[in-house]
Amino acid sequence: MRRRYAILALDRFQDDAKTAHGVLRYGNDEVVAVIDPSCAGRRVRDVLPYLESDTPIVESLSQALQYAPTALLIGTAPKGGGLPTEWRGTILEAIAAHLEIVSGLHEMLDEDREFHTAARAAGTRIWDVRKPPGVPLFSGEAYNAAPPIILTIGNDCAVGKMTVSLELVRAANQAGNKARFVPTGQTGVLIAGWGISIDRVIADFAAGAAEQLVLYAAHEGAELIVVEGQGAINHPAYAAVTVALMTGCAPDALVLVADPRRRRIETYPTPTLSYGASIALHERFLAAVKPAPVVGIALNTHGLNENEALAEVERARSEIGLPCDDLVRFGADRFYAAIKDRLVKTAPTAAART
Amino acid sequence: MRRRYAILALDRFQDDAKTAHGVLRYGNDEVVAVIDPSCAGRRVRDVLPYLESDTPIVESLSQALQYAPTALLIGTAPKGGGLPTEWRGTILEAIAAHLEIVSGLHEMLDEDREFHTAARAAGTRIWDVRKPPGVPLFSGEAYNAAPPIILTIGNDCAVGKMTVSLELVRAANQAGNKARFVPTGQTGVLIAGWGISIDRVIADFAAGAAEQLVLYAAHEGAELIVVEGQGAINHPAYAAVTVALMTGCAPDALVLVADPRRRRIETYPTPTLSYGASIALHERFLAAVKPAPVVGIALNTHGLNENEALAEVERARSEIGLPCDDLVRFGADRFYAAIKDRLVKTAPTAAART
Repeated sequence: MRRRYAILALDRFQDDAKTAHGVLRYGNDEVVAVIDPSCAGRRVRDVLPYLESDTPIVESLSQALQYAPTALLIGTAPKGGGLPTEWRGTILEAIAAHLEIVSGLHEMLDEDREFHTAARAAGTRIWDVRKPPGVPLFSGEAYNAAPPIILTIGNDCAVGKMTVSLELVRAANQAGNKARFVPTGQTGVLIAGWGISIDRVIADFAAGAAEQLVLYAAHEGAELIVVEGQGAINHPAYAAVTVALMTGCAPDALVLVADPRRRRIETYPTPTLSYGASIALHERFLAAVKPAPVVGIALNTHGLNENEALAEVERARSEIGLPCDDLVRFGADRFYAAIKDRLVKTAPTAAART
Repeated sequence: MRRRYAILALDRFQDDAKTAHGVLRYGNDEVVAVIDPSCAGRRVRDVLPYLESDTPIVESLSQALQYAPTALLIGTAPKGGGLPTEWRGTILEAIAAHLEIVSGLHEMLDEDREFHTAARAAGTRIWDVRKPPGVPLFSGEAYNAAPPIILTIGNDCAVGKMTVSLELVRAANQAGNKARFVPTGQTGVLIAGWGISIDRVIADFAAGAAEQLVLYAAHEGAELIVVEGQGAINHPAYAAVTVALMTGCAPDALVLVADPRRRRIETYPTPTLSYGASIALHERFLAAVKPAPVVGIALNTHGLNENEALAEVERARSEIGLPCDDLVRFGADRFYAAIKDRLVKTAPTAAART
């Protein structure tokens, strides 16, 4: 059954609620109200036109309840990390109203004694989206998954790997290919309603978790699997998560998502890789385990004007010789059509028996 | 204060007690008795000559108590994973005798209600070596560590990266360079009495954990830091852990540890990399973050006879053009002398400011 979400985004809906925006734009579940006093009385579309949603924005949980939500989604992260007291009150109020609590915070709400006890008493539950389930070690079973598996990779964090994955799945489905999005981060998990935040899994088991996700998608009958990538291969802090996905989900093809304006990895001295260097490093790494070619480049030209964006797309295409586009700005159909025939299963690199 | 260990290795001491052997051979703590009925009455030296230890092997904990141990070390993993009932009895007996319990098992003994309660009642404690402490994200502070940092890498798991690291530290200290071993796995942690099992850290924080370890060693005044590596760069399950160390401990130089007889990574189809391919892939990967050359190859020629071993060492040396030796078989002094001048600090790869 689909959830009916009230999204808690106190005073932050417009500027700092990536989770809320993702669920509004791509989620399988319905959003019946957004709670944010700073823009109450308006509709989502009035505040953020690109979300194309008429969902009402209200002042408080009690106002949201008139839209009959079944769940309260924490749609933004509190400043400073600790849960503010006023949020606690709203969450307890929602539990008392028998709403399910859905949270992507690092802090596990179900491990908070007050919330946990209240939820049990109210007969409802708390879903901490980031909490990883127990997973086995990587077994190699993913090598037998039938559908082609695409993994998105990136030149940095937060360049749009999730969005490109979702747009690719949409384009494939529109073209008649039954494609499935595999979520690997908390926003992706919230959007799809299943998945694992790979960055929260114990390092030894991270590849195993990725494998379980693609096996699940294959088992559900997908004809094409698109896995949301994480981090960057040369990210000083998160390369391990990137590599866990590269090995664990056994991809047959990679799509490079890049923001051409990024020069450095987050706040580290590390330079982002050029398109060519990135492709070469990923392909060389995977050649030692299971080869997967980069089949196209999905640029994030946000912040460039249309002419600049077209010029950058053309530059990348002629430099690299692969399909290249901005899938959000110009749509994903053309890009999907261009890479479709390159999606061929590859075999794991195998040792000669001696 | 040094511990006085009784090591529990019921029926497995001779063949399957890697932790026990490591602590006997390299540990800072003393081992006063080994508990294994299958070879009780003999001494460690009689069973495993290379350990060069006169420690008595006894039948039971009560016999071990006459040697006044201060701690019981679980020296082997139980078959099947679950803790056998007879082990429980011995552990509870040890707690009642006020011994500290030290365990490298995946299962956290301190989270077992019976053990935890008994330990509190007896005023002793349970040290689960694998339990990771809270660690921050990787910050880049390791780039400022003064001493050169060596990371051992390998062509597979369990080829001797810990042993080579320990032998290198011993050789450096004998040559008058104050070197420090940085443990990253449970046996290494038991040997050194500090450290973190990186494979148990949440993936996002694994590089940060590695960074904290080298910062600690640098802070303690080491002039050379040798980090125990884990896994292999093309290990289908554990590459993420390998990469977390490659980025997180900010190495200036790598030493490749390889067993030339290994053809495949554990039970996966994946072939082990040739010396040359392994060196090229590691160096290319790290060039994108912080360059670190491979400065030598430490072969594990266990299973070859002496002539075969010498031939393989010579073959690797002439093929690759780097210092090459078996540090266990032929000693580490010559190898350390050969790589010493190649241990030069490298700077992180930095983006031009634009």
